Amino acid sequence: MVIIDGKKVSNKILNEIEEEIRRKNWKEKIGLGVIIIGIRKDSSVYVRKKIEACDRVGIKSYKIELKTTVTNEIVCKEIEKLNENDDIHGILIQLPIPRHLNEEKILRKINYLKDVDGFHANNMGYLAMERREPLFIPCTPLGCFELLKEYKIEIEGKEVVVIGKSNIVGLPMALIMMKEMATVTVCHKMTKNIEEHTKRADILIVGVGVGHMVKKDWVKVGAVVIDIGINVLKDETRKRGYRLIGDVDYENVKEISSYITPVPGGVGPMTVSMLIKNTLKSYKNLNGY
Amino acid sequence: MVIIDGKKVSNKILNEIEEEIRRKNWKEKIGLGVIIIGIRKDSSVYVRKKIEACDRVGIKSYKIELKTTVTNEIVCKEIEKLNENDDIHGILIQLPIPRHLNEEKILRKINYLKDVDGFHANNMGYLAMERREPLFIPCTPLGCFELLKEYKIEIEGKEVVVIGKSNIVGLPMALIMMKEMATVTVCHKMTKNIEEHTKRADILIVGVGVGHMVKKDWVKVGAVVIDIGINVLKDETRKRGYRLIGDVDYENVKEISSYITPVPGGVGPMTVSMLIKNTLKSYKNLNGY
Repeated sequence: MVIIDGKKVSNKILNEIEEEIRRKNWKEKIGLGVIIIGIRKDSSVYVRKKIEACDRVGIKSYKIELKTTVTNEIVCKEIEKLNENDDIHGILIQLPIPRHLNEEKILRKINYLKDVDGFHANNMGYLAMERREPLFIPCTPLGCFELLKEYKIEIEGKEVVVIGKSNIVGLPMALIMMKEMATVTVCHKMTKNIEEHTKRADILIVGVGVGHMVKKDWVKVGAVVIDIGINVLKDETRKRGYRLIGDVDYENVKEISSYITPVPGGVGPMTVSMLIKNTLKSYKNLNGY
Repeated sequence: MVIIDGKKVSNKILNEIEEEIRRKNWKEKIGLGVIIIGIRKDSSVYVRKKIEACDRVGIKSYKIELKTTVTNEIVCKEIEKLNENDDIHGILIQLPIPRHLNEEKILRKINYLKDVDGFHANNMGYLAMERREPLFIPCTPLGCFELLKEYKIEIEGKEVVVIGKSNIVGLPMALIMMKEMATVTVCHKMTKNIEEHTKRADILIVGVGVGHMVKKDWVKVGAVVIDIGINVLKDETRKRGYRLIGDVDYENVKEISSYITPVPGGVGPMTVSMLIKNTLKSYKNLNGY
């Protein structure tokens, strides 16, 4: 059994990008605009990690903090400014945003060419379609795909089961796997006898946000297990009073899987490096490299 | 066993639309532009049926016939004219188009608001995404969905297997079923042991273009079978020398299915009525009704 080391792979990618930016003298020339609305502890952590990664590789980040009570109009105006700013090559809105805001309208406002999170309908459509290529693919599923490639795990013709069909994780994950010619089944909260599906999977990908949902007897012996969930579990034995667990019952499932991602240290770090990769891609694309 | 009568359902829908257009005095006010490139016998038949349906309900059709040797630029110019023409509310390019043309570029040129075939990446993206609604859904899969609704076949939580993942049929079909909260598996030419999948299906939808591919022993007793294939089979006993068959071995499969669509007379007629429905929708949308 191989534990997929997302931290290591992510580091390698960030090192390569850092090296490329240095070599090409692009330091501080590439800009990423990050809009964060309101105060959410998890969002703050994610945004901090993204900005740290920018600093590390030499991408300039522009953090725009808006109040929870902000209007759609003000968010859209901020996006417009970033759209028009030639120093900005990638724009992301940290999700989730407060419920009174119109997520669709806001995400659609982002210039398709700067949509490094890949949440624009146009990118999602091209990701879904045969003989089309999206400009950007959402970072978390793209990170999972990179891990599979890095560990030389074959996808074509394989039985892939994705649990979860969110716009950010499950849906684009399923679309990537379909494009790679896997036979894909998408499970979700209305799926009956879910373990009958998961037991078929050569590659099982889980992104639902339910701690330790996937048990050992849900998994086929020798399966590849990719765990996208990050759940907070109270743990009084830890100094900070909690620990992070995935959607997979890792300790037990790893006994029978061929490859497995841990939480933390699996998919999580990849989300950040894929964002940086997409931002570099956007810079090249916008400048005709 | 119920034979799903697509001709009857399609007729009903066209009658309702005809009646609505008459009542609202919209006759000849709604316009559909149809671009057909080159000479393909099957395409000519489809275009003729679409134009006949327009005539029947009181939609004005504008047929633009281009030579096989036409350039991307000329096709795009024709589309632009239709985009800008206020008398035109829907635009369709009859597919497939000659191979030297850039299908992506051409389809993307169509104004999203007039994309009654639903092939624009934006429409496909919104079809795929949760909490989003596409303006238009591709006509053939939309027609299958309408048939399921018409026959009150439950979709939520059902096991749906789609064979084929083309942009026009299989992919949007799978996306509709996912949105309706079915558990969807998409099979294709790289799928191993395909009959293991099809045998699980409560609803089996086939759109691959391989005559009689789906055999009786591929199908679960009581399954709903939707056959999108239209294949030409030589038949010397017929006056015209051929007959049309579906992707499903209809005569044998119908013995065990609960509902089944015949070919012809199943899904086919629905494609046309959905195009008319989308065109009416577009007229209303563009005019703020």
